[in-house]
Amino acid sequence: MTAVCLGYFIKINHDRKENVESRKSSRYKNNGMDFTDSMKKVKEDSFIMASLAEETRNAALAAVADALEKNKDAIFAANEKDLAYAKESSLAAPIVSRLKFDRGKLNSCITGINDLIGLEDPLFKELLKRELDEGLILTKTTCPIGVIGVIFESRPDALVQIASLCIKSGNCSILKGGSEAKNTNKALFNIIYEAAVNAGLPKGFATLIEDRAEISELLKCHDYVDLLIPRGSNQFVQYIMDNSKIPVMGHADGICHIYVDGAANIEKAIPIIIDSKTQYAAACNAAETLLVHQGIADLIIPLLAEASGNKIKYRCDARCASLIPCEPATEKDFETEYLDDILSIKIVDDIDEAIRHINRYGSHHTDCIITEDKDSAEKFMSLVDSAGVYQNCSTRFADGFRYGFGAEVGISTGKIHARGPVGLDGLVTYKYKLVGDGQIVADYANGTSTFKFHDL
Amino acid sequence: MTAVCLGYFIKINHDRKENVESRKSSRYKNNGMDFTDSMKKVKEDSFIMASLAEETRNAALAAVADALEKNKDAIFAANEKDLAYAKESSLAAPIVSRLKFDRGKLNSCITGINDLIGLEDPLFKELLKRELDEGLILTKTTCPIGVIGVIFESRPDALVQIASLCIKSGNCSILKGGSEAKNTNKALFNIIYEAAVNAGLPKGFATLIEDRAEISELLKCHDYVDLLIPRGSNQFVQYIMDNSKIPVMGHADGICHIYVDGAANIEKAIPIIIDSKTQYAAACNAAETLLVHQGIADLIIPLLAEASGNKIKYRCDARCASLIPCEPATEKDFETEYLDDILSIKIVDDIDEAIRHINRYGSHHTDCIITEDKDSAEKFMSLVDSAGVYQNCSTRFADGFRYGFGAEVGISTGKIHARGPVGLDGLVTYKYKLVGDGQIVADYANGTSTFKFHDL
Repeated sequence: MTAVCLGYFIKINHDRKENVESRKSSRYKNNGMDFTDSMKKVKEDSFIMASLAEETRNAALAAVADALEKNKDAIFAANEKDLAYAKESSLAAPIVSRLKFDRGKLNSCITGINDLIGLEDPLFKELLKRELDEGLILTKTTCPIGVIGVIFESRPDALVQIASLCIKSGNCSILKGGSEAKNTNKALFNIIYEAAVNAGLPKGFATLIEDRAEISELLKCHDYVDLLIPRGSNQFVQYIMDNSKIPVMGHADGICHIYVDGAANIEKAIPIIIDSKTQYAAACNAAETLLVHQGIADLIIPLLAEASGNKIKYRCDARCASLIPCEPATEKDFETEYLDDILSIKIVDDIDEAIRHINRYGSHHTDCIITEDKDSAEKFMSLVDSAGVYQNCSTRFADGFRYGFGAEVGISTGKIHARGPVGLDGLVTYKYKLVGDGQIVADYANGTSTFKFHDL
Repeated sequence: MTAVCLGYFIKINHDRKENVESRKSSRYKNNGMDFTDSMKKVKEDSFIMASLAEETRNAALAAVADALEKNKDAIFAANEKDLAYAKESSLAAPIVSRLKFDRGKLNSCITGINDLIGLEDPLFKELLKRELDEGLILTKTTCPIGVIGVIFESRPDALVQIASLCIKSGNCSILKGGSEAKNTNKALFNIIYEAAVNAGLPKGFATLIEDRAEISELLKCHDYVDLLIPRGSNQFVQYIMDNSKIPVMGHADGICHIYVDGAANIEKAIPIIIDSKTQYAAACNAAETLLVHQGIADLIIPLLAEASGNKIKYRCDARCASLIPCEPATEKDFETEYLDDILSIKIVDDIDEAIRHINRYGSHHTDCIITEDKDSAEKFMSLVDSAGVYQNCSTRFADGFRYGFGAEVGISTGKIHARGPVGLDGLVTYKYKLVGDGQIVADYANGTSTFKFHDL
């Protein structure tokens, strides 16, 4: 369940052939409904989803886990088709590896669903209970967001995770996966769909979009879809944000920094930098820029280059270009998410310059200070405006699984609603319930009654 | 501190004369900076605001309260100018009354600030503290959103409330009030500004926009402004949403419903309906549509018309048009926020029809069921998709002050981030802090280390 933000860009163009085929799979569309009408039905079903008891949602998840196990051969067969097509098309090895859905991936999915069943219900939690006046009780209670559209990359296991998170949190999901995985996604979706509807979920609980052209239709459905979570390239996320009135949660870039402070322990610093850059360079939480305090630069930069061997290519600013073999870093480098084993390095005068650089060039994702000085760490973590602010550990920890959330639907670099890795908590909102016995506002306006405001 | 959503529509057009004058007032713009550059400076100051201790923010609030009292004569004199201009321009009586800033309004403002000082700090709260592994501690801590633009109506007290809420929550505010109140707003802003900066807040903590044309510039500042809260007419809010990439919190319409169930107590129902409609018809939480169960319609509708006298004008659907003097209700009526003493009435077959009607025609603001039946109440409150779902009380209770929040910056009908009346809680987000001692992800990927996930 690695945080993913790479390599997935959907071309929004119309494909007639795929279009016809897709009409067959998604339930409400089966009835000859057009896309918008099917979203309207989904919206209606979302109110039913929101009122389902925890037992019903958990029973549906258990049925899904069961059905995936029972139908594993059909899933593997569908995946073989996708893999064969990937080989035919000479897709890059990392894509093929993400595309593969084997016994191991299935086991992870089933374990993930069972873990999810065990998690506390995110719905119907009382966040506040207040007596406004005698017999006038205000309750703030969690409820699902409603209808959530998630556009995700080529890993078929992402479909299982997202659909499961939405079931657990009482949301209807609109799912669009990578087209490379279309056979596997369709097989997985059909199995999940049958099992969950038979277990009592409404027909609109999930919809699979197979046709790329329908993404543009989805973007227009702001009356029916409450939230979009696009996972993909910067360009793609930007396209979604620019072309829909639906709120978007997610992140475009992942430009993460490591700042090596003057008071850094170099033995900790070097493995952290190498891990942050190379453990999975294509992930959004990989580091792109290293900022080094001037007092320690001469020492650490050569040691880093030595330790990283030929694993990392460096782009250095003028102040450190002479220290190691490198290309010169330009302004553009500090704005670039390499998604590759390239690291830009800049020497800074002090922690203030480091913080200013990060707040200016960063993407508010995850940034780390390496220091043994408590005050510097606190300053950095307070002033850096990012979802994750770290001290003395790899930026690659920024991930829902590694935070112990069980799973994530994405990572948010926005500051509204949810920030950082988004698990179940980010998929709920709340409503205010007020129960009275005939109270009217006129009585409070004219002084006949007064508020008590007593928390229960 | 009434929830306000009415009558305020800013024409986005350029006014050269006003433009020149406004350059003098807002601090960063004093230095000859253009609007975007001044927002960039504000953004930089927002990181400082985010790190200020509770004592500093509370001391600034106390200084503001003090300064308002000391400079009351200047405020009242400025207000006289606005009132004189309002009379000259023959502005409507309710606008003039909202515009008035007298001893009573000043007292409320000062009391409000002192209440705010007493409220728990919304910042630096630990929402989660988890040991991911030995010596690797994850903390989820509240922090300000950053820079918040609020565009509000003609009440000058709104400026004081919003600026104070933003100080308490560590946010920088960009404030634009109604042009009818421009002299009062400028006087209030200057007093608040001097006092707060002298008490230690950064220069960018607040900015007053006096020039309407600068609203369009503000809408383009998505790199520097984190959230917009427009309070105004449906048309205006829609304009903001359509013309900015900045997240918008607020509401366009306030189409609130009352459903009188078959099991309603009529003695409670009638005062609630009259209060919801007439206690302040121009507010967003006033009721616009009454839905009545067919079994009780013949009884209650004539009694309501009798009790309301000529206070309310009715628009009835075909099924109830013969019961009372009324105009016919069209489809259009059920989509209309009257902002006036007009109520549309529809007879429904059952609670399901009522819920469907509300979810289709409502604005997800506040809707109420009148019933003595617990199951019906629960069904209604579970299935109606609104920020406020009420039983047996006036929809006019939907307000930050009446909920005991001290104040509100607005009411949100969106489901992302904050919903209903938005107080201090809605002005904060959180960041994840991870403190380690050299941990790298490779060790967890290859099995050398395993996560413990132990909540502290």
